[in-house]
Amino acid sequence: MKKGHFLKQMGIDYPIIQAPMAGGVTTNELVAAVSNAGGLGMVGAGYLNPSQLSEQILSIREMTDKPFGVNLFVASTVHIDQKRINRSQKLLSPLAEQLGIENNSAPLPSQEEIDSTFRQHIDVLLKKGVRICSFTFGIPEAEVIQKLKTEGVFVIGTATTVEEASLNEKAGMDAVVLQGSEAGGHRGTFAAAPEKGQVGLMSLIPQAADKVGIPLIASGGIMDGRGLLAAKILGASAVQMGSAFLVCNESGAHTVHKDAILQACDDGTILTRSFSGKLARGINNVFIQSLKGYEEEFPEFPVQNTLTSKIRKTASLQQNPDYMSLWSGQSPLLARPLSASDLVLKVMEEAKIAERDWMK
Amino acid sequence: MKKGHFLKQMGIDYPIIQAPMAGGVTTNELVAAVSNAGGLGMVGAGYLNPSQLSEQILSIREMTDKPFGVNLFVASTVHIDQKRINRSQKLLSPLAEQLGIENNSAPLPSQEEIDSTFRQHIDVLLKKGVRICSFTFGIPEAEVIQKLKTEGVFVIGTATTVEEASLNEKAGMDAVVLQGSEAGGHRGTFAAAPEKGQVGLMSLIPQAADKVGIPLIASGGIMDGRGLLAAKILGASAVQMGSAFLVCNESGAHTVHKDAILQACDDGTILTRSFSGKLARGINNVFIQSLKGYEEEFPEFPVQNTLTSKIRKTASLQQNPDYMSLWSGQSPLLARPLSASDLVLKVMEEAKIAERDWMK
Repeated sequence: MKKGHFLKQMGIDYPIIQAPMAGGVTTNELVAAVSNAGGLGMVGAGYLNPSQLSEQILSIREMTDKPFGVNLFVASTVHIDQKRINRSQKLLSPLAEQLGIENNSAPLPSQEEIDSTFRQHIDVLLKKGVRICSFTFGIPEAEVIQKLKTEGVFVIGTATTVEEASLNEKAGMDAVVLQGSEAGGHRGTFAAAPEKGQVGLMSLIPQAADKVGIPLIASGGIMDGRGLLAAKILGASAVQMGSAFLVCNESGAHTVHKDAILQACDDGTILTRSFSGKLARGINNVFIQSLKGYEEEFPEFPVQNTLTSKIRKTASLQQNPDYMSLWSGQSPLLARPLSASDLVLKVMEEAKIAERDWMK
Repeated sequence: MKKGHFLKQMGIDYPIIQAPMAGGVTTNELVAAVSNAGGLGMVGAGYLNPSQLSEQILSIREMTDKPFGVNLFVASTVHIDQKRINRSQKLLSPLAEQLGIENNSAPLPSQEEIDSTFRQHIDVLLKKGVRICSFTFGIPEAEVIQKLKTEGVFVIGTATTVEEASLNEKAGMDAVVLQGSEAGGHRGTFAAAPEKGQVGLMSLIPQAADKVGIPLIASGGIMDGRGLLAAKILGASAVQMGSAFLVCNESGAHTVHKDAILQACDDGTILTRSFSGKLARGINNVFIQSLKGYEEEFPEFPVQNTLTSKIRKTASLQQNPDYMSLWSGQSPLLARPLSASDLVLKVMEEAKIAERDWMK
């Protein structure tokens, strides 16, 4: 099992990883607070440009001498399908109107730009000496993994099925995040069809544990010590928590987003591809409901993400939860608006209590 | 927690309940073997007529003096929507052709017949002195629950969300099965919209444990001691296992069905309403794939179930997995074709080992 060894390799005290939530959630303060508390803070760098990433790494380093990690989106293939783009713009236009804007969206992403950003991200990590790097939306090319490993970077993949976990192991990843169907935000599914990559953690962890030799990091719906202990018993070496840290004081999530999670129920989330073209779990709202039935017609990620970006930004500025992407896992009733360090310590304490109660 | 108390109330030794799988899976031999081993055998009576149920109870009693239970479908409202029926028959007809038959289906169910069968089932249980009764697809009327409780029957509900669990508690249920999204077969969702009732156990158990006072029985993807221990740590008092017992020697499931589970992967199942009009999880096959995209057009349960019955039966007779409903949870890689008593004892042993390893 090498449980202790795994934590030692990463240089952290507790098996708690703060999920790398892209889009401004993982502030310097959040990442540093989690790492300082003994967990692993992670920068969600998916939407950052290389100089922003570089700056964030420097700033975090001023706030902690503990290890922290960076998560990158594996470069997507950009499909420019003008018919789908037109259809999407037509469907989005009445929603933009509701917000009092015209949906003249940002320039479409280009393949060159996306590939180049990914390469530059890797260079930044290596130059700045980041020791832990995780990936989502696929597995990077062998040379990239090799380069990182040669420089002593601990590399972590993301999987939503046993097969995807095996592929990560074969590619040389040091550990793999198992993203259960409970998880909030974008599905990391890359080898399976989207509907196949929706396996619950109670199924995913033990089946992966039997087939895969590298340490497993369980993510999806885990927000307290009971979840941590249960995940470890099923075969995980650590947990990665997203929504739990999203509602913390140091998180950069919009107050409207935090409040939506704190008021949601277990059955209040839904999987949708309307926001970005990639399946993601968020709190059901007007945006999602309005586009239900059209989801399959939208362009793929990241094109659709660009097309909805003005709507999402405007909704944020207007504090209007109806049109924001309110990513959340399936356990909002367990959310607690604490400081990130209090959360880390509380989860560890709860796990110990759960263990002690269990032994009585 | 009253863990021990709960098992004592039901009169069983181990917190393992064999899921009541309707449609011939829960043979007398299976139910009796599970109960004799110290777990709780359950008859899936949903599709039995009252005299079949009566006979099965008598036969099981000859094979065990331990308690066993019966599960009933709460009487559905029959919607006869001729337009949907015609559409369904048109869509099913080419599939029937593939099997060399005409899909002249059985007579449609009538509301009177369904209501009367449910009442007669309750009478059979009371007359035969069955001590444990569980329900799925809803909560029966208050008088039914009251009648059963007055006669000392232990009543168990089914929930797929925290709200549904609370409704079961308010209705006076003695315990409630939490059906996670991992579970095989029909979803028990009744208060929530179908897509909302898909919460994974890692989320569903702890959130329900915080809100509901009656004992919780976790079901969905649990097939071994790790799952049992994890479910208990999350807040469940027992587990209910379906696919795990379906592949056992004593189960009445078709060999083709057992083999399909034993050869499936974690991502091989899918939710579909094409077989019955109610959302259910099974192994993806030609039948499901052929009707993808039309699912919302079918009549509701139990009408669609009647319309597909000849196809399913013919496919079974022809040993053709392409057109059978191969219900399975999301953990087929954990399936073991053992005797039911060996499985019960093995799961208990594994849970003890998992606990001991954990404490090291």
